[in-house]
Amino acid sequence: MTNGNKQASGEDSLIARYFKPLATDAGAFALDDDAAILKAQGEDIVVTTDAIVEGVHFLPDDPPDTIARKALRVNLSDLAAKGAAPAGFVLTLALREVDGGWLAAFARGLGEDAQSFACPLLGGDTVSTPGPLTVSITAFGRVGEGKMVRRSGASAGDHIMVTGTIGDAALGLDVLKGGAVAAALTGDPTGKELLVGRYRVPQPRSTLARAVRAHASAAMDVSDGLAGDLTKLCAASGVSATIDAPLVPVSAVAAGLVSRGAVTLETLICGGDDYELLCTVSEPRRSAFAEEARRAGVALTAIGMVTAGTGAPRFLDGEGGEIRLTRLSYSHF
Amino acid sequence: MTNGNKQASGEDSLIARYFKPLATDAGAFALDDDAAILKAQGEDIVVTTDAIVEGVHFLPDDPPDTIARKALRVNLSDLAAKGAAPAGFVLTLALREVDGGWLAAFARGLGEDAQSFACPLLGGDTVSTPGPLTVSITAFGRVGEGKMVRRSGASAGDHIMVTGTIGDAALGLDVLKGGAVAAALTGDPTGKELLVGRYRVPQPRSTLARAVRAHASAAMDVSDGLAGDLTKLCAASGVSATIDAPLVPVSAVAAGLVSRGAVTLETLICGGDDYELLCTVSEPRRSAFAEEARRAGVALTAIGMVTAGTGAPRFLDGEGGEIRLTRLSYSHF
Repeated sequence: MTNGNKQASGEDSLIARYFKPLATDAGAFALDDDAAILKAQGEDIVVTTDAIVEGVHFLPDDPPDTIARKALRVNLSDLAAKGAAPAGFVLTLALREVDGGWLAAFARGLGEDAQSFACPLLGGDTVSTPGPLTVSITAFGRVGEGKMVRRSGASAGDHIMVTGTIGDAALGLDVLKGGAVAAALTGDPTGKELLVGRYRVPQPRSTLARAVRAHASAAMDVSDGLAGDLTKLCAASGVSATIDAPLVPVSAVAAGLVSRGAVTLETLICGGDDYELLCTVSEPRRSAFAEEARRAGVALTAIGMVTAGTGAPRFLDGEGGEIRLTRLSYSHF
Repeated sequence: MTNGNKQASGEDSLIARYFKPLATDAGAFALDDDAAILKAQGEDIVVTTDAIVEGVHFLPDDPPDTIARKALRVNLSDLAAKGAAPAGFVLTLALREVDGGWLAAFARGLGEDAQSFACPLLGGDTVSTPGPLTVSITAFGRVGEGKMVRRSGASAGDHIMVTGTIGDAALGLDVLKGGAVAAALTGDPTGKELLVGRYRVPQPRSTLARAVRAHASAAMDVSDGLAGDLTKLCAASGVSATIDAPLVPVSAVAAGLVSRGAVTLETLICGGDDYELLCTVSEPRRSAFAEEARRAGVALTAIGMVTAGTGAPRFLDGEGGEIRLTRLSYSHF
């Protein structure tokens, strides 16, 4: 993503107009060069990349500022899960056409989030595509040398904790698609709005990154469904887990839908797009972690324990019976 | 791009099968985590990102290994132009479907290039798309602190130099599209093959990176056409330029097409996809730069001079007349 052409091409002028104001870091060279510079400042650079595709991760008529926010936030969520402080990002935008109003709103949303999460635009690429709008972001964070929190550090006896509430985003997508949840919430516009908001604009738990780094034995963000992502964390750590399903934190609107039989608990724990943090923490560190989360203003709930073995995690209902999950998580293929 | 799910999803198993072998760097954690670690090793990290889209940057029936190589090489070309040594890359692959044979060939080409250019896969993301195949790569390089070669360092009196030959790739695209070049080369399969190869698999000038860093006052890679890219470099440096067009290095097959009137010189200097380096170098450093290029085995040709002023660069024909260019370079929009 470069600019500086006196006889600016369409590509160059759209970059100058919409994205240059976001390139506030000195290493971005005002998007005026072929590459950016990222200073490590004596720390490790954490690199993560996530793309969102129109019709897959967001809907064609989602507001452009929410598309931009989601694209950045899914990456910020990964950085937080790894205990890293945001350092910047590069953006690849594949567009069918240049629509000034759309781009202005997209850039405004992106710029606001870049500022509020202290994660400046460093560079990027804009390309034309005949296909769906695709936003690909690679984000960078900094963490003390060797201090990135891995998926692989969980030990038997660790507590399993999640932030926020689980399942709202999957319900929000159903609302947007006019599915069963939309029907069940016909008289509840506020409930629908809450769920849709959770789907469109995830809340990365960046304020918890420091506490995750200090206390978590393992962590990842929940992006493809709690059940599937916990399975991945357990596999990476060589452990298993038991989850007390009634402890999984859900929003009031989601709880209402479950109690009315409109959706099952499985829908919530296997749905995608939560972008909450899943952490394991040893008993001695649990209270300090909870205290830091409280101070950071992030809800943190213990939902089960890491156990020895390599079997799939077990989700138990209120009577101690195992809930059989038919589909652990979202997969693109 | 992560793996580690015992009950692997389609996405996870395709990553494990095809891409894990490419993740040779310790910081990639065998693609088993949400993020990678990049060590700065006391240097600056250079970040560049470029995406290629089916039907725009490559053709649907291009061999998959060449698509992979091009995706990585266009980024390696940027790193070389900035004087940086490759450090690794992340890949975002937007696929319509999982085709094992296609993916195996893609991963093989990518892996061979990653190894030969010492640029290991650090991580990535695979997403499904209903649209064209899109390959987005963010690549990282290392360069001494403050030593990245900018576009903005050219001064009046500097020599302007380019590597390799200019214009072949644009002709190769015309061959693949069955255009005028294809017709003019009907009896010359070798010539067609050479041009198509230049379009499909660019040759990043990575071996010249050290010399660029040591000697060039400004540099960029030629990706959107020599004329347009030189215009950008001049604008970033606040200078102008005069190019002796007959000095612009062209391949024998391109020269033949020009002399037969099948294409014009303008086609060559305004065509895209060259991925050669455009450098400016002061008179005192010129011979040392040329000598290092010779030792690196990279053809380097002086084509003109940087001049004072802010006018567009002038391209002069053999008689000193100015060649009027109607379209400076490729633009996506």
